[in-house]
Amino acid sequence: MQKIISILVRNHPGVLSHVAGLFTRRAYNIESIAAGETENPEVTRITIVVSGDEFILDQVTKQLEKLVDVIQVQDLKYSESVTRELVLLTIFVSVKQRQKVIATANTFDAVVLDISEKTMTLEFVGNRRKIDTIIHALQEFRIKALARTGIVAVPLESQIEKERTLL
Amino acid sequence: MQKIISILVRNHPGVLSHVAGLFTRRAYNIESIAAGETENPEVTRITIVVSGDEFILDQVTKQLEKLVDVIQVQDLKYSESVTRELVLLTIFVSVKQRQKVIATANTFDAVVLDISEKTMTLEFVGNRRKIDTIIHALQEFRIKALARTGIVAVPLESQIEKERTLL
Repeated sequence: MQKIISILVRNHPGVLSHVAGLFTRRAYNIESIAAGETENPEVTRITIVVSGDEFILDQVTKQLEKLVDVIQVQDLKYSESVTRELVLLTIFVSVKQRQKVIATANTFDAVVLDISEKTMTLEFVGNRRKIDTIIHALQEFRIKALARTGIVAVPLESQIEKERTLL
Repeated sequence: MQKIISILVRNHPGVLSHVAGLFTRRAYNIESIAAGETENPEVTRITIVVSGDEFILDQVTKQLEKLVDVIQVQDLKYSESVTRELVLLTIFVSVKQRQKVIATANTFDAVVLDISEKTMTLEFVGNRRKIDTIIHALQEFRIKALARTGIVAVPLESQIEKERTLL
């Protein structure tokens, strides 16, 4: 199973390495990780997507909670969360092909960030499925650089509200 | 000084923890980290922003290159790169205040992802300065959840081309 784990940590040196270490010691590979400051500059939120056996992932969650610099560990369900990823993609595009790439970009609300003699750089945001669809739509163009942020997620309040009403 | 280091690594368990460990062993704090798959599912790109003494950061870069699973280490200059970050922000908004938040969102090309009885969730993308400006513009609203991806960056080909022409 795949899990989104959202972890609030104190910004101390080593905390990221400790958190990542907990997963890797069990030979789990982290599918994506994103870490950025919260509204409190002393606190960072780390969002990790991992897949693996549910029982063992639960154990890892419990061990995370025991780390000194970990403030909170949240297990976000896909059905109750918004998940998003940002991608920067530079592809080789000839002058002739530019219009075609611009049309594809418009279809997917991608932003053209840069055009050089031989390349174009696009920025786009979406859930994993949308991102994969855009990359697939541009697959005829050779990739020069691709940077993905990894997934970030926040709870979907309207969905949580609805479920509360249904109870 | 602040540095953007872009690292291509093989997707082996432990590699992220090793990379992060190299920085933290020297008591450097990583300001942001983002890791996501590249076009090759066996290769991940890690983008790290760190600040510190230039000489020591150069040493860290050299040590990174020696790690078994590290394929490439690139030192990206701000002036020759596009840097972007993605933010998901949930704030407490009363029904009365919704229009005001929607107006602010439109000003900054932010996307409204969710509206619940008491909250709104926004998605926005930009360089660090733009992100800080939007968060500042919304500071009257209490934050319920904030998730930032950390910075990703790719070389700005048009800028590199221009500098090549000037040489």
